[in-house]
Amino acid sequence: MSVLIVGSTALDSIKTPKAENPRLLGGSASHAAVAASFFSPVKLVGVVGHDFPKKYVRLYRRHKIDLEGLQRLPGKTFHWSGEYEANMNNRRTLLTELGVFETFTPTLPKSYQTSQFVLLANIAPSLQHHVLNQMRRPKFVVADTMDLWLNIALADLLKLLPRLDGFMLNDGEAHQLTKEDNVFAALKKIHKLGPKYVIIKKGSHGSILSGPKGFFICPAYPLHTVVDPTGAGDSFVGGMMGYLATAGNSINGSIRRAMIYGSVVASFCCEGFGLTQITRTKRKQINQRVKKLEMLTRF
Amino acid sequence: MSVLIVGSTALDSIKTPKAENPRLLGGSASHAAVAASFFSPVKLVGVVGHDFPKKYVRLYRRHKIDLEGLQRLPGKTFHWSGEYEANMNNRRTLLTELGVFETFTPTLPKSYQTSQFVLLANIAPSLQHHVLNQMRRPKFVVADTMDLWLNIALADLLKLLPRLDGFMLNDGEAHQLTKEDNVFAALKKIHKLGPKYVIIKKGSHGSILSGPKGFFICPAYPLHTVVDPTGAGDSFVGGMMGYLATAGNSINGSIRRAMIYGSVVASFCCEGFGLTQITRTKRKQINQRVKKLEMLTRF
Repeated sequence: MSVLIVGSTALDSIKTPKAENPRLLGGSASHAAVAASFFSPVKLVGVVGHDFPKKYVRLYRRHKIDLEGLQRLPGKTFHWSGEYEANMNNRRTLLTELGVFETFTPTLPKSYQTSQFVLLANIAPSLQHHVLNQMRRPKFVVADTMDLWLNIALADLLKLLPRLDGFMLNDGEAHQLTKEDNVFAALKKIHKLGPKYVIIKKGSHGSILSGPKGFFICPAYPLHTVVDPTGAGDSFVGGMMGYLATAGNSINGSIRRAMIYGSVVASFCCEGFGLTQITRTKRKQINQRVKKLEMLTRF
Repeated sequence: MSVLIVGSTALDSIKTPKAENPRLLGGSASHAAVAASFFSPVKLVGVVGHDFPKKYVRLYRRHKIDLEGLQRLPGKTFHWSGEYEANMNNRRTLLTELGVFETFTPTLPKSYQTSQFVLLANIAPSLQHHVLNQMRRPKFVVADTMDLWLNIALADLLKLLPRLDGFMLNDGEAHQLTKEDNVFAALKKIHKLGPKYVIIKKGSHGSILSGPKGFFICPAYPLHTVVDPTGAGDSFVGGMMGYLATAGNSINGSIRRAMIYGSVVASFCCEGFGLTQITRTKRKQINQRVKKLEMLTRF
Protein backbone atom coordinates (compact mmCIF):
# COMPACT_ATOMS: atom_id res chain seq x y z
CA MET A 1 0.00 0.00 0.00
CA SER A 2 1.12 3.58 -0.57
CA VAL A 3 1.75 6.28 2.02
CA LEU A 4 0.41 9.79 1.63
CA ILE A 5 2.89 12.32 3.00
CA VAL A 6 2.22 16.01 3.50
CA GLY A 7 4.81 18.41 4.88
CA SER A 8 7.30 21.02 3.86
CA THR A 9 9.27 20.86 0.63
CA ALA A 10 12.16 23.25 0.99
CA LEU A 11 15.64 24.33 0.10
CA ASP A 12 17.99 24.00 3.08
CA SER A 13 21.25 25.87 3.49
CA ILE A 14 23.13 24.01 6.19
CA LYS A 15 26.27 25.02 8.02
CA THR A 16 28.24 22.71 10.32
CA PRO A 17 31.68 23.27 11.87
CA LYS A 18 33.13 21.23 9.00
CA ALA A 19 31.24 22.41 5.90
CA GLU A 20 28.60 24.61 4.36
CA ASN A 21 26.04 23.45 1.82
CA PRO A 22 23.64 25.88 0.19
CA ARG A 23 20.18 25.10 -1.18
CA LEU A 24 20.03 21.35 -0.69
CA LEU A 25 16.70 19.60 -1.13
CA GLY A 26 15.07 19.55 2.30
CA GLY A 27 11.84 19.90 4.21
CA SER A 28 9.98 17.39 6.33
CA ALA A 29 8.03 15.92 3.42
CA SER A 30 11.12 15.47 1.22
CA HIS A 31 13.01 13.61 3.93
CA ALA A 32 10.01 11.51 4.95
CA ALA A 33 9.08 10.70 1.35
CA VAL A 34 12.54 9.51 0.36
CA ALA A 35 12.75 7.44 3.57
CA ALA A 36 9.32 5.85 2.99
CA SER A 37 10.13 5.16 -0.67
CA PHE A 38 12.49 2.32 0.32
CA PHE A 39 9.47 0.35 1.47
CA SER A 40 6.33 1.52 -0.31
CA PRO A 41 5.01 3.87 -3.02
CA VAL A 42 4.69 7.46 -1.81
CA LYS A 43 2.21 10.20 -2.71
CA LEU A 44 3.67 13.61 -1.91
CA VAL A 45 1.71 16.72 -0.96
CA GLY A 46 3.68 19.97 -0.89
CA VAL A 47 4.45 23.20 -2.64
CA VAL A 48 7.50 24.59 -4.45
CA GLY A 49 8.24 27.86 -6.23
CA HIS A 50 9.48 28.73 -9.71
CA ASP A 51 13.10 28.48 -8.50
CA PHE A 52 12.80 24.81 -7.48
CA PRO A 53 15.65 23.02 -9.27
CA LYS A 54 14.68 20.42 -11.86
CA LYS A 55 17.32 18.07 -10.44
CA TYR A 56 15.27 17.81 -7.26
CA VAL A 57 12.16 16.87 -9.21
CA ARG A 58 14.27 14.17 -10.86
CA LEU A 59 15.43 13.05 -7.40
CA TYR A 60 11.81 12.59 -6.26
CA ARG A 61 11.09 10.71 -9.49
CA ARG A 62 14.05 8.38 -9.05
CA HIS A 63 12.43 7.40 -5.75
CA LYS A 64 9.14 6.79 -7.61
CA ILE A 65 7.41 9.46 -5.56
CA ASP A 66 4.01 10.42 -6.97
CA LEU A 67 4.15 14.20 -7.54
CA GLU A 68 0.53 14.80 -8.55
CA GLY A 69 0.04 16.53 -5.18
CA LEU A 70 3.12 18.74 -5.45
CA GLN A 71 1.93 22.25 -6.28
CA ARG A 72 4.18 24.55 -8.31
CA LEU A 73 3.36 28.19 -7.61
CA PRO A 74 4.84 31.45 -8.81
CA GLY A 75 7.18 32.75 -6.13
CA LYS A 76 10.14 31.38 -4.25
CA THR A 77 10.52 27.94 -2.70
CA PHE A 78 10.58 27.84 1.11
CA HIS A 79 14.22 28.41 2.13
CA TRP A 80 15.62 27.53 5.54
CA SER A 81 19.14 28.15 6.70
CA GLY A 82 20.64 26.85 9.93
CA GLU A 83 23.91 26.27 11.69
CA TYR A 84 24.95 23.35 13.92
CA GLU A 85 27.32 23.50 16.86
CA ALA A 86 30.20 21.03 17.16
CA ASN A 87 28.13 18.53 19.19
CA MET A 88 25.59 18.34 16.31
CA ASN A 89 22.72 18.57 18.78
CA ASN A 90 22.28 22.31 19.16
CA ARG A 91 21.35 24.21 16.06
CA ARG A 92 20.18 27.74 15.40
CA THR A 93 18.11 29.04 12.56
CA LEU A 94 19.91 31.71 10.54
CA LEU A 95 17.12 32.47 8.10
CA THR A 96 13.57 31.44 7.22
CA GLU A 97 12.08 32.62 3.90
CA LEU A 98 8.59 31.14 3.63
CA GLY A 99 8.07 32.07 -0.03
CA VAL A 100 5.21 30.09 -1.61
CA PHE A 101 4.74 28.28 1.68
CA GLU A 102 3.15 31.37 3.19
CA THR A 103 -0.11 30.93 1.30
CA PHE A 104 0.05 27.17 0.78
CA THR A 105 -3.23 25.24 1.03
CA PRO A 106 -2.75 21.54 0.37
CA THR A 107 -5.41 20.27 -2.02
CA LEU A 108 -5.43 16.54 -2.50
CA PRO A 109 -5.80 14.96 -5.94
CA LYS A 110 -8.67 12.48 -6.01
CA SER A 111 -6.30 9.53 -6.24
CA TYR A 112 -4.75 10.57 -2.93
CA GLN A 113 -7.95 10.79 -0.91
CA THR A 114 -8.36 7.06 -0.35
CA SER A 115 -4.81 6.49 0.94
CA GLN A 116 -4.76 4.14 3.92
CA PHE A 117 -1.53 5.33 5.50
CA VAL A 118 -1.20 9.06 6.08
CA LEU A 119 1.84 10.85 7.43
CA LEU A 120 1.26 14.44 8.45
CA ALA A 121 4.94 15.34 8.55
CA ASN A 122 6.05 18.49 10.34
CA ILE A 123 4.00 21.44 9.05
CA ALA A 124 1.46 23.84 10.60
CA PRO A 125 -1.28 21.90 12.45
CA SER A 126 -3.95 23.83 10.50
CA LEU A 127 -2.58 22.33 7.27
CA GLN A 128 -2.43 18.89 8.86
CA HIS A 129 -6.15 19.33 9.69
CA HIS A 130 -6.84 20.50 6.16
CA VAL A 131 -5.32 17.35 4.68
CA LEU A 132 -7.20 15.08 7.08
CA ASN A 133 -10.47 16.81 6.15
CA GLN A 134 -9.98 15.60 2.57
CA MET A 135 -9.25 11.96 3.45
CA ARG A 136 -11.77 9.12 3.29
CA ARG A 137 -11.39 6.69 6.19
CA PRO A 138 -7.62 6.28 6.33
CA LYS A 139 -6.40 3.24 8.28
CA PHE A 140 -3.47 4.77 10.14
CA VAL A 141 -2.74 8.47 10.53
CA VAL A 142 0.47 9.70 12.18
CA ALA A 143 1.53 13.30 12.73
CA ASP A 144 4.93 14.75 13.57
CA THR A 145 5.37 18.28 14.90
CA MET A 146 7.95 20.77 16.17
CA ASP A 147 8.40 23.24 19.03
CA LEU A 148 7.32 26.16 16.81
CA TRP A 149 3.73 24.83 16.61
CA LEU A 150 3.62 24.26 20.36
CA ASN A 151 4.52 27.92 20.70
CA ILE A 152 2.29 29.53 18.08
CA ALA A 153 -0.44 26.98 17.19
CA LEU A 154 -1.05 24.94 20.33
CA ALA A 155 -4.87 25.12 20.10
CA ASP A 156 -4.80 23.73 16.53
CA LEU A 157 -2.41 21.00 17.59
CA LEU A 158 -4.54 19.99 20.59
CA LYS A 159 -7.56 19.71 18.27
CA LEU A 160 -5.53 17.54 15.90
CA LEU A 161 -4.39 14.99 18.51
CA PRO A 162 -7.78 13.19 18.91
CA ARG A 163 -7.90 12.76 15.12
CA LEU A 164 -4.63 10.82 15.05
CA ASP A 165 -3.70 7.19 15.53
CA GLY A 166 -0.08 8.06 16.21
CA PHE A 167 1.77 11.17 17.31
CA MET A 168 5.50 11.76 17.26
CA LEU A 169 7.54 14.47 18.97
CA ASN A 170 10.96 14.85 20.53
CA ASP A 171 11.76 14.81 24.24
CA GLY A 172 12.07 18.59 24.51
CA GLU A 173 8.68 19.05 22.84
CA ALA A 174 7.12 16.37 25.07
CA HIS A 175 8.35 18.32 28.08
CA GLN A 176 7.02 21.56 26.62
CA LEU A 177 3.61 19.99 25.95
CA THR A 178 3.16 18.17 29.27
CA LYS A 179 5.51 19.97 31.70
CA GLU A 180 6.76 16.50 32.64
CA ASP A 181 10.51 15.92 32.91
CA ASN A 182 10.07 12.17 32.91
CA VAL A 183 9.52 10.72 29.44
CA PHE A 184 7.21 7.94 30.64
CA ALA A 185 5.07 10.33 32.65
CA ALA A 186 4.92 12.59 29.55
CA LEU A 187 3.80 9.66 27.37
CA LYS A 188 0.94 8.92 29.75
CA LYS A 189 -0.27 12.52 29.56
CA ILE A 190 -0.04 12.64 25.77
CA HIS A 191 -2.21 9.52 25.43
CA LYS A 192 -4.91 11.39 27.34
CA LEU A 193 -4.84 14.04 24.60
CA GLY A 194 -5.91 11.45 22.02
CA PRO A 195 -3.37 9.32 20.19
CA LYS A 196 -3.19 5.57 20.83
CA TYR A 197 0.44 5.41 19.73
CA VAL A 198 2.88 8.02 21.00
CA ILE A 199 6.55 8.06 20.06
CA ILE A 200 9.09 10.30 21.77
CA LYS A 201 12.30 10.82 19.78
CA LYS A 202 15.52 11.27 21.73
CA GLY A 203 18.03 11.84 18.91
CA SER A 204 21.13 9.68 19.33
CA HIS A 205 19.54 8.07 22.40
CA GLY A 206 16.87 6.42 20.24
CA SER A 207 13.12 6.65 20.77
CA ILE A 208 10.34 5.30 22.97
CA LEU A 209 7.00 4.00 21.75
CA SER A 210 4.00 3.84 24.02
CA GLY A 211 1.11 1.92 22.52
CA PRO A 212 -1.63 -0.62 23.28
CA LYS A 213 1.05 -3.26 23.84
CA GLY A 214 3.05 -1.11 26.25
CA PHE A 215 6.44 0.48 25.73
CA PHE A 216 9.10 -0.27 23.16
CA ILE A 217 12.61 1.04 23.68
CA CYS A 218 13.95 1.64 20.17
CA PRO A 219 17.71 2.18 19.82
CA ALA A 220 19.39 4.61 17.47
CA TYR A 221 21.88 3.05 15.08
CA PRO A 222 25.42 3.79 16.40
CA LEU A 223 27.24 6.34 14.26
CA HIS A 224 30.85 7.43 14.77
CA THR A 225 30.34 10.52 12.67
CA VAL A 226 27.25 12.62 12.19
CA VAL A 227 27.67 14.80 9.12
CA ASP A 228 24.27 16.53 9.23
CA PRO A 229 21.32 15.52 11.43
CA THR A 230 18.81 17.69 9.50
CA GLY A 231 15.82 15.56 8.57
CA ALA A 232 16.74 12.61 10.79
CA GLY A 233 13.40 12.75 12.61
CA ASP A 234 11.51 13.09 9.32
CA SER A 235 13.43 10.11 7.90
CA PHE A 236 12.64 8.12 11.01
CA VAL A 237 8.88 8.63 10.79
CA GLY A 238 8.93 8.33 6.98
CA GLY A 239 10.78 5.02 7.12
CA MET A 240 8.44 3.78 9.82
CA MET A 241 5.30 4.65 7.85
CA GLY A 242 6.72 3.20 4.63
CA TYR A 243 7.49 -0.07 6.39
CA LEU A 244 4.07 -0.19 8.08
CA ALA A 245 2.25 0.37 4.78
CA THR A 246 3.72 -2.81 3.29
CA ALA A 247 4.11 -4.97 6.41
CA GLY A 248 0.65 -6.49 5.91
CA ASN A 249 0.53 -7.44 9.57
CA SER A 250 -1.50 -5.56 12.18
CA ILE A 251 -0.05 -2.24 13.34
CA ASN A 252 0.72 -3.76 16.74
CA GLY A 253 2.47 -6.65 15.07
CA SER A 254 4.68 -4.43 12.89
CA ILE A 255 5.27 -1.12 14.59
CA ARG A 256 8.39 -2.11 16.56
CA ARG A 257 10.13 -3.42 13.48
CA ALA A 258 8.88 -0.39 11.55
CA MET A 259 10.54 1.90 14.10
CA ILE A 260 13.80 -0.06 13.78
CA TYR A 261 13.71 0.42 10.00
CA GLY A 262 12.96 4.11 10.54
CA SER A 263 15.88 4.35 12.93
CA VAL A 264 18.24 2.80 10.38
CA VAL A 265 17.03 5.03 7.54
CA ALA A 266 17.58 8.02 9.84
CA SER A 267 21.16 6.87 10.45
CA PHE A 268 21.92 6.98 6.72
CA CYS A 269 20.30 10.42 6.57
CA CYS A 270 22.75 11.69 9.22
CA GLU A 271 25.76 10.47 7.26
CA GLY A 272 25.48 13.07 4.53
CA PHE A 273 24.30 16.63 4.03
CA GLY A 274 20.60 16.90 3.30
CA LEU A 275 19.51 13.87 1.26
CA THR A 276 22.90 13.20 -0.35
CA GLN A 277 23.73 10.00 1.55
CA ILE A 278 20.26 8.54 1.87
CA THR A 279 19.62 8.81 -1.87
CA ARG A 280 22.75 6.70 -2.46
CA THR A 281 21.64 4.04 -0.01
CA LYS A 282 20.42 0.62 -1.17
CA ARG A 283 17.70 -1.42 0.52
CA LYS A 284 20.29 -4.14 1.13
CA GLN A 285 22.37 -1.76 3.28
CA ILE A 286 19.28 -0.91 5.31
CA ASN A 287 18.60 -4.59 5.92
CA GLN A 288 22.21 -5.09 7.02
CA ARG A 289 21.96 -2.34 9.62
CA VAL A 290 18.66 -3.72 10.90
CA LYS A 291 20.41 -7.09 11.40
CA LYS A 292 23.27 -5.30 13.15
CA LEU A 293 20.85 -3.49 15.47
CA GLU A 294 19.43 -6.87 16.40
CA MET A 295 22.92 -8.01 17.35
CA LEU A 296 23.64 -4.81 19.26
CA THR A 297 20.59 -5.08 21.49
CA ARG A 298 20.31 -8.83 22.10
CA PHE A 299 21.14 -10.10 25.58
CA MET B 1 32.71 -16.26 43.52
CA SER B 2 32.86 -13.13 45.63
CA VAL B 3 33.42 -9.54 44.51
CA LEU B 4 35.84 -7.24 46.26
CA ILE B 5 34.51 -3.69 46.29
CA VAL B 6 36.44 -0.62 47.36
CA GLY B 7 34.96 2.87 47.35
CA SER B 8 33.46 5.49 49.59
CA THR B 9 31.30 4.66 52.59
CA ALA B 10 29.46 7.80 53.51
CA LEU B 11 26.51 9.53 55.07
CA ASP B 12 24.43 11.34 52.42
CA SER B 13 22.06 14.20 53.12
CA ILE B 14 19.88 14.46 50.05
CA LYS B 15 17.43 17.16 49.08
CA THR B 16 14.98 16.90 46.19
CA PRO B 17 12.09 19.22 45.29
CA LYS B 18 9.80 16.78 47.13
CA ALA B 19 11.72 15.79 50.28
CA GLU B 20 14.83 16.07 52.40
CA ASN B 21 16.61 13.11 53.96
CA PRO B 22 19.57 13.63 56.28
CA ARG B 23 22.43 11.20 56.94
CA LEU B 24 21.31 8.23 54.85
CA LEU B 25 23.78 5.41 54.24
CA GLY B 26 25.55 6.27 51.00
CA GLY B 27 28.86 6.27 49.17
CA SER B 28 29.89 4.44 46.01
CA ALA B 29 30.98 1.28 47.86
CA SER B 30 27.76 1.05 49.90
CA HIS B 31 25.56 1.29 46.81
CA ALA B 32 27.73 -1.06 44.75
CA ALA B 33 28.04 -3.60 47.58
CA VAL B 34 24.31 -3.82 48.25
CA ALA B 35 23.66 -4.11 44.49
CA ALA B 36 26.26 -6.86 44.05
CA SER B 37 24.97 -8.73 47.11
CA PHE B 38 21.87 -9.86 45.21
CA PHE B 39 24.10 -12.06 43.08
CA SER B 40 27.30 -12.94 44.93
CA PRO B 41 29.12 -12.58 48.27
CA VAL B 42 30.77 -9.18 48.69
CA LYS B 43 33.96 -8.13 50.48
CA LEU B 44 33.84 -4.44 51.33
CA VAL B 45 36.82 -2.11 51.66
CA GLY B 46 36.10 1.32 53.13
CA VAL B 47 36.35 3.54 56.16
CA VAL B 48 33.84 4.98 58.63
CA GLY B 49 34.15 7.19 61.71
CA HIS B 50 32.99 6.89 65.29
CA ASP B 51 29.63 8.43 64.37
CA PHE B 52 28.73 5.70 61.87
CA PRO B 53 25.28 4.44 62.95
CA LYS B 54 25.08 0.81 64.10
CA LYS B 55 21.93 0.37 62.02
CA TYR B 56 24.00 0.80 58.88
CA VAL B 57 26.44 -1.89 59.99
CA ARG B 58 23.41 -4.11 60.49
CA LEU B 59 22.20 -3.18 56.99
CA TYR B 60 25.52 -4.32 55.47
CA ARG B 61 25.29 -7.53 57.51
CA ARG B 62 21.76 -8.26 56.35
CA HIS B 63 23.20 -8.22 52.83
CA LYS B 64 25.89 -10.68 54.00
CA ILE B 65 28.62 -8.16 53.16
CA ASP B 66 32.02 -9.13 54.57
CA LEU B 67 33.14 -6.17 56.69
CA GLU B 68 36.64 -7.36 57.57
CA GLY B 69 37.98 -4.65 55.24
CA LEU B 70 35.83 -1.85 56.66
CA GLN B 71 38.09 0.33 58.83
CA ARG B 72 36.62 2.15 61.82
CA LEU B 73 38.70 5.21 62.68
CA PRO B 74 38.37 7.94 65.29
CA GLY B 75 36.84 10.99 63.60
CA LYS B 76 33.74 11.65 61.56
CA THR B 77 32.32 9.58 58.72
CA PHE B 78 32.53 11.15 55.25
CA HIS B 79 29.42 13.31 54.87
CA TRP B 80 28.08 14.53 51.53
CA SER B 81 25.09 16.75 51.04
CA GLY B 82 23.48 17.56 47.70
CA GLU B 83 20.36 18.96 46.13
CA TYR B 84 18.56 17.84 42.95
CA GLU B 85 16.63 20.04 40.55
CA ALA B 86 13.11 19.10 39.44
CA ASN B 87 14.35 17.16 36.40
CA MET B 88 16.42 14.89 38.71
CA ASN B 89 19.39 15.14 36.36
CA ASN B 90 21.13 18.28 37.58
CA ARG B 91 22.41 18.22 41.11
CA ARG B 92 24.65 20.48 43.11
CA THR B 93 26.82 19.64 46.07
CA LEU B 94 25.90 21.63 49.16
CA LEU B 95 28.57 20.25 51.49
CA THR B 96 31.47 17.79 51.53
CA GLU B 97 33.00 16.84 54.89
CA LEU B 98 35.73 14.28 54.21
CA GLY B 99 36.24 13.31 57.86
CA VAL B 100 38.13 10.00 58.23
CA PHE B 101 38.20 9.73 54.45
CA GLU B 102 40.86 12.42 54.28
CA THR B 103 43.62 10.10 55.53
CA PHE B 104 42.13 6.79 54.39
CA THR B 105 44.53 4.16 53.09
CA PRO B 106 42.76 0.95 52.16
CA THR B 107 44.62 -2.04 53.56
CA LEU B 108 43.31 -5.39 52.37
CA PRO B 109 42.83 -8.29 54.77
CA LYS B 110 44.64 -11.40 53.56
CA SER B 111 41.40 -13.13 52.70
CA TYR B 112 40.58 -10.31 50.27
CA GLN B 113 43.81 -10.37 48.27
CA THR B 114 42.94 -13.39 46.15
CA SER B 115 39.53 -12.09 45.03
CA GLN B 116 38.92 -12.77 41.35
CA PHE B 117 36.44 -9.97 40.70
CA VAL B 118 37.48 -6.51 41.79
CA LEU B 119 35.35 -3.38 41.58
CA LEU B 120 37.22 -0.15 42.15
CA ALA B 121 34.10 1.93 42.74
CA ASN B 122 34.29 5.71 42.55
CA ILE B 123 37.12 6.91 44.82
CA ALA B 124 40.46 8.71 44.24
CA PRO B 125 42.49 6.92 41.53
CA SER B 126 45.49 6.79 43.91
CA LEU B 127 43.43 4.62 46.29
CA GLN B 128 42.23 2.47 43.38
CA HIS B 129 45.94 1.92 42.53
CA HIS B 130 46.69 1.15 46.16
CA VAL B 131 44.06 -1.58 46.26
CA LEU B 132 45.22 -3.12 42.99
CA ASN B 133 48.80 -3.21 44.30
CA GLN B 134 47.66 -5.57 47.04
CA MET B 135 45.79 -7.97 44.75
CA ARG B 136 47.16 -11.28 43.49
CA ARG B 137 46.19 -11.97 39.87
CA PRO B 138 42.55 -10.94 39.87
CA LYS B 139 40.49 -12.24 36.91
CA PHE B 140 38.43 -9.14 36.13
CA VAL B 141 39.06 -5.62 37.41
CA VAL B 142 36.62 -2.79 36.71
CA ALA B 143 36.91 0.83 37.82
CA ASP B 144 34.31 3.56 37.98
CA THR B 145 35.22 7.23 38.31
CA MET B 146 33.76 10.75 38.43
CA ASP B 147 34.43 14.19 36.95
CA LEU B 148 36.27 15.31 40.12
CA TRP B 149 39.15 12.88 39.43
CA LEU B 150 39.35 13.95 35.81
CA ASN B 151 39.80 17.47 37.14
CA ILE B 152 42.23 16.93 40.01
CA ALA B 153 43.84 13.49 39.51
CA LEU B 154 43.95 12.90 35.76
CA ALA B 155 47.56 11.63 35.73
CA ASP B 156 46.73 8.98 38.35
CA LEU B 157 43.63 7.96 36.42
CA LEU B 158 45.52 7.66 33.12
CA LYS B 159 48.07 5.39 34.85
CA LEU B 160 45.23 3.28 36.22
CA LEU B 161 43.51 2.65 32.87
CA PRO B 162 46.07 0.15 31.46
CA ARG B 163 45.74 -1.86 34.69
CA LEU B 164 42.00 -2.39 34.19
CA ASP B 165 39.90 -4.89 32.28
CA GLY B 166 36.89 -2.62 32.35
CA PHE B 167 36.31 1.09 32.82
CA MET B 168 33.03 2.85 33.41
CA LEU B 169 32.19 6.53 33.20
CA ASN B 170 29.25 8.70 32.23
CA ASP B 171 28.78 10.53 28.94
CA GLY B 172 29.82 13.90 30.33
CA GLU B 173 33.02 12.42 31.75
CA ALA B 174 33.73 10.59 28.48
CA HIS B 175 33.50 13.92 26.70
CA GLN B 176 35.76 15.55 29.31
CA LEU B 177 38.35 12.78 28.93
CA THR B 178 38.40 12.52 25.14
CA LYS B 179 37.01 15.86 23.91
CA GLU B 180 34.71 13.79 21.68
CA ASP B 181 31.01 14.71 21.50
CA ASN B 182 30.14 11.42 19.85
CA VAL B 183 29.88 8.55 22.32
CA PHE B 184 31.18 5.94 19.86
CA ALA B 185 34.17 8.07 18.91
CA ALA B 186 34.86 8.58 22.64
CA LEU B 187 34.70 4.81 23.27
CA LYS B 188 37.32 4.22 20.59
CA LYS B 189 39.68 6.73 22.18
CA ILE B 190 39.21 5.30 25.67
CA HIS B 191 40.12 1.79 24.48
CA LYS B 192 43.45 3.22 23.34
CA LEU B 193 44.09 4.30 26.95
CA GLY B 194 43.99 0.68 28.08
CA PRO B 195 40.73 -1.02 29.02
CA LYS B 196 39.30 -3.82 26.86
CA TYR B 197 35.76 -3.16 28.06
CA VAL B 198 34.49 0.41 28.24
CA ILE B 199 30.99 1.31 29.40
CA ILE B 200 29.52 4.79 29.01
CA LYS B 201 26.55 5.48 31.28
CA LYS B 202 23.83 7.79 29.98
CA GLY B 203 21.46 7.92 32.97
CA SER B 204 17.85 7.37 31.91
CA HIS B 205 19.04 6.79 28.32
CA GLY B 206 20.80 3.56 29.36
CA SER B 207 24.42 2.70 28.68
CA ILE B 208 26.72 1.55 25.89
CA LEU B 209 29.30 -1.21 26.17
CA SER B 210 32.24 -1.41 23.81
CA GLY B 211 34.17 -4.66 24.12
CA PRO B 212 35.91 -7.41 22.13
CA LYS B 213 32.52 -8.44 20.72
CA GLY B 214 31.58 -4.92 19.63
CA PHE B 215 28.94 -2.66 21.04
CA PHE B 216 25.99 -3.46 23.25
CA ILE B 217 23.19 -0.92 23.62
CA CYS B 218 21.86 -1.45 27.15
CA PRO B 219 18.50 0.13 27.99
CA ALA B 220 17.58 1.75 31.29
CA TYR B 221 14.52 0.27 32.96
CA PRO B 222 11.57 2.67 32.37
CA LEU B 223 10.57 4.53 35.54
CA HIS B 224 7.62 6.91 35.83
CA THR B 225 9.00 8.42 39.01
CA VAL B 226 12.58 8.90 40.09
CA VAL B 227 12.69 9.56 43.83
CA ASP B 228 16.48 9.89 44.19
CA PRO B 229 19.06 8.97 41.56
CA THR B 230 21.99 9.09 44.01
CA GLY B 231 23.98 5.88 43.70
CA ALA B 232 22.28 4.67 40.51
CA GLY B 233 25.60 4.42 38.66
CA ASP B 234 27.22 2.64 41.62
CA SER B 235 24.29 0.21 41.79
CA PHE B 236 24.59 -0.40 38.06
CA VAL B 237 28.27 -1.36 38.18
CA GLY B 238 27.81 -3.22 41.48
CA GLY B 239 24.96 -5.30 40.11
CA MET B 240 26.92 -5.99 36.94
CA MET B 241 30.00 -7.19 38.84
CA GLY B 242 27.92 -9.29 41.23
CA TYR B 243 26.21 -11.00 38.31
CA LEU B 244 29.50 -11.56 36.45
CA ALA B 245 31.12 -13.12 39.52
CA THR B 246 28.54 -15.90 39.63
CA ALA B 247 27.69 -16.26 35.94
CA GLY B 248 30.33 -18.93 35.47
CA ASN B 249 30.44 -18.20 31.77
CA SER B 250 33.19 -16.22 30.03
CA ILE B 251 33.07 -12.45 30.52
CA ASN B 252 32.10 -12.02 26.86
CA GLY B 253 29.33 -14.55 27.29
CA SER B 254 27.86 -12.84 30.36
CA ILE B 255 28.58 -9.14 30.30
CA ARG B 256 25.48 -8.05 28.35
CA ARG B 257 23.16 -9.86 30.70
CA ALA B 258 25.22 -8.59 33.65
CA MET B 259 24.65 -5.01 32.46
CA ILE B 260 20.91 -5.66 32.17
CA TYR B 261 20.85 -6.91 35.77
CA GLY B 262 22.88 -3.86 36.81
CA SER B 263 20.42 -1.62 34.99
CA VAL B 264 17.47 -3.20 36.80
CA VAL B 265 19.13 -2.95 40.22
CA ALA B 266 19.85 0.72 39.48
CA SER B 267 16.15 1.25 38.71
CA PHE B 268 15.17 0.01 42.18
CA CYS B 269 17.86 2.26 43.66
CA CYS B 270 16.23 5.30 42.00
CA GLU B 271 12.83 4.49 43.49
CA GLY B 272 13.76 5.40 47.06
CA PHE B 273 16.06 7.76 48.92
CA GLY B 274 19.55 6.39 49.42
CA LEU B 275 19.37 2.62 49.86
CA THR B 276 15.84 2.55 51.29
CA GLN B 277 14.10 0.97 48.28
CA ILE B 278 16.87 -1.31 47.08
CA THR B 279 17.25 -2.91 50.52
CA ARG B 280 13.56 -3.84 50.41
CA THR B 281 13.88 -5.41 46.97
CA LYS B 282 13.75 -9.18 46.46
CA ARG B 283 15.72 -11.11 43.85
CA LYS B 284 12.41 -12.23 42.35
CA GLN B 285 11.45 -8.61 41.60
CA ILE B 286 14.81 -8.09 39.89
CA ASN B 287 14.22 -11.14 37.70
CA GLN B 288 10.76 -9.85 36.79
CA ARG B 289 12.15 -6.52 35.59
CA VAL B 290 14.86 -8.28 33.59
CA LYS B 291 12.10 -10.26 31.84
CA LYS B 292 10.19 -7.05 31.26
CA LEU B 293 13.27 -5.37 29.75
CA GLU B 294 13.50 -8.30 27.35
CA MET B 295 9.91 -7.65 26.30
CA LEU B 296 10.51 -3.90 26.00
CA THR B 297 13.45 -4.24 23.62
CA ARG B 298 12.45 -7.22 21.45
CA PHE B 299 11.52 -6.52 17.84
